Amino acid sequence: MRMRLSQGDSVYYDLFTAAAQNVRNGVGVLSEALVPDADRAALVPVLKDIEHTGDEHTHDIVRRVNSGLKPPFHRDDIYRLAGALDDVLDDVEAALDLMVLYRIRELPNGIAAMIDVLDRAADLTAEAMPRLRAANELTKYWIEINRLENEADQTYRRLLARIFSGEYDALTVHKLKDVIETLESAVDGFERVANVVEQIALKQS
Amino acid sequence: MRMRLSQGDSVYYDLFTAAAQNVRNGVGVLSEALVPDADRAALVPVLKDIEHTGDEHTHDIVRRVNSGLKPPFHRDDIYRLAGALDDVLDDVEAALDLMVLYRIRELPNGIAAMIDVLDRAADLTAEAMPRLRAANELTKYWIEINRLENEADQTYRRLLARIFSGEYDALTVHKLKDVIETLESAVDGFERVANVVEQIALKQS
Amino acid sequence: MRMRLSQGDSVYYDLFTAAAQNVRNGVGVLSEALVPDADRAALVPVLKDIEHTGDEHTHDIVRRVNSGLKPPFHRDDIYRLAGALDDVLDDVEAALDLMVLYRIRELPNGIAAMIDVLDRAADLTAEAMPRLRAANELTKYWIEINRLENEADQTYRRLLARIFSGEYDALTVHKLKDVIETLESAVDGFERVANVVEQIALKQS
Repeated sequence: MRMRLSQGDSVYYDLFTAAAQNVRNGVGVLSEALVPDADRAALVPVLKDIEHTGDEHTHDIVRRVNSGLKPPFHRDDIYRLAGALDDVLDDVEAALDLMVLYRIRELPNGIAAMIDVLDRAADLTAEAMPRLRAANELTKYWIEINRLENEADQTYRRLLARIFSGEYDALTVHKLKDVIETLESAVDGFERVANVVEQIALKQS
Repeated sequence: MRMRLSQGDSVYYDLFTAAAQNVRNGVGVLSEALVPDADRAALVPVLKDIEHTGDEHTHDIVRRVNSGLKPPFHRDDIYRLAGALDDVLDDVEAALDLMVLYRIRELPNGIAAMIDVLDRAADLTAEAMPRLRAANELTKYWIEINRLENEADQTYRRLLARIFSGEYDALTVHKLKDVIETLESAVDGFERVANVVEQIALKQS
Repeated sequence: MRMRLSQGDSVYYDLFTAAAQNVRNGVGVLSEALVPDADRAALVPVLKDIEHTGDEHTHDIVRRVNSGLKPPFHRDDIYRLAGALDDVLDDVEAALDLMVLYRIRELPNGIAAMIDVLDRAADLTAEAMPRLRAANELTKYWIEINRLENEADQTYRRLLARIFSGEYDALTVHKLKDVIETLESAVDGFERVANVVEQIALKQS
């Protein structure tokens, strides 16, 4: 019985690790797409596939919670963690989709700093999931994610000030603002993931 | 005592059914308001009345939770469900209010697809509430709402691309974008309603 | 043991009172910053200090929840209340930061009504926290906050209609809209604080 339960627990950690790794892959594709000469349209189906994989992870997690085996942490926290990871991937997919739909060619220089934050947040999150089991080692992760989110806030506001400076025409401003806001929302999503992880860890401690 | 409790339970299902039916009415008025020759200003007080009825449903639900009778599902889920229904109605009312305030006459063609999604989501939600009691029959409902929300996402982005295409002047772009975002937010609201229903159903199962 | 516990409870009320008073101070600085001839750049570091103090309050609260002493209300509600207060301060700081970054000099007249709402919401919230202990006296507080939020919604939409009326150039519209949306988000934040307080009070009753 004990082993059965522990096997059940393992599955959750494995599923969240897979889900976070999948988000990591999605951010990787977005990074590729944002370099100046990328063939963005070709990357849209790649990212759709990753989003589809993400949906399957979410369904696996929800089905397992519903299977009767007691999960290693609170049901609500499991739904919220799965949902928060899903939200990040939605934003990542939306950012690329908008760039293609709006036919945006060049992005303002400052965007590289935001993509860098997304890359680091995705790495940290993917590394944190296998350690959900050992809650005490997660403090550094969520402090770093919160620091990154504050950094992204500054970058975000400076990017907006830049695109409002008169360099771009009115419609381009609208388009760039939408893409930049979507990237900012993805960073916020990583912070929400970290907040759920923090609460799971505090409840276990 | 048993009967008393079961009576208490009935009241919740009835209240949520009434609340969702009221949201349904609100979306109906909005649909009317969005046809080209509608007298929108005349529909504003109609929608305010519906919003007022919605507030009364919410207060009834909260008061009942607070009355000491054990509710049929978790207090937090009841608040969240009432709150999510209320948010949809807020967006519905805001969309009409903005159109009147901004003196928007014509909407881009694609808007019909979004209103259609709202109509179908409102119908599905109103039909789902009486079945909260029999949680196992709700799977189709929330799968369909999630599908509709994905459909609306695509429509939404294509509508934005359309209004950014150069057809409209800069101020009209701002106004249309606000209205379209508010409609999209209403669709998201229906998805949040479905997510709470899903969690209630999974906990009961 | 009883006294120990009661001491532990006191600390929570004191911490939330201090956190809400700090938000109150932040709104005060923002009010100063929004008068026409304010030296806004000089107020940025003042508000950063207040935000830093807010972060310390949040960490104190989280650390205490994690210390093993049973808190006077549910852990999740404590995190949500601390988080909601923190969100208000983030918006307050963002509003000032954006005005400085965008080099906005004049604000539309209607903005005074929004600042007035923020001021009153901040006062009400700061006064409510010490009364968390006596939940039954909080009804007036959250009814009034909800009323203020509805008032702010109307003001907000009328402000948008005003800045979209043709008086401002396209880039100024973008900048003003961002600031006004951030103020509106701060008002919404006060409503979320009131919602958590309401749920805490209802659970205690």
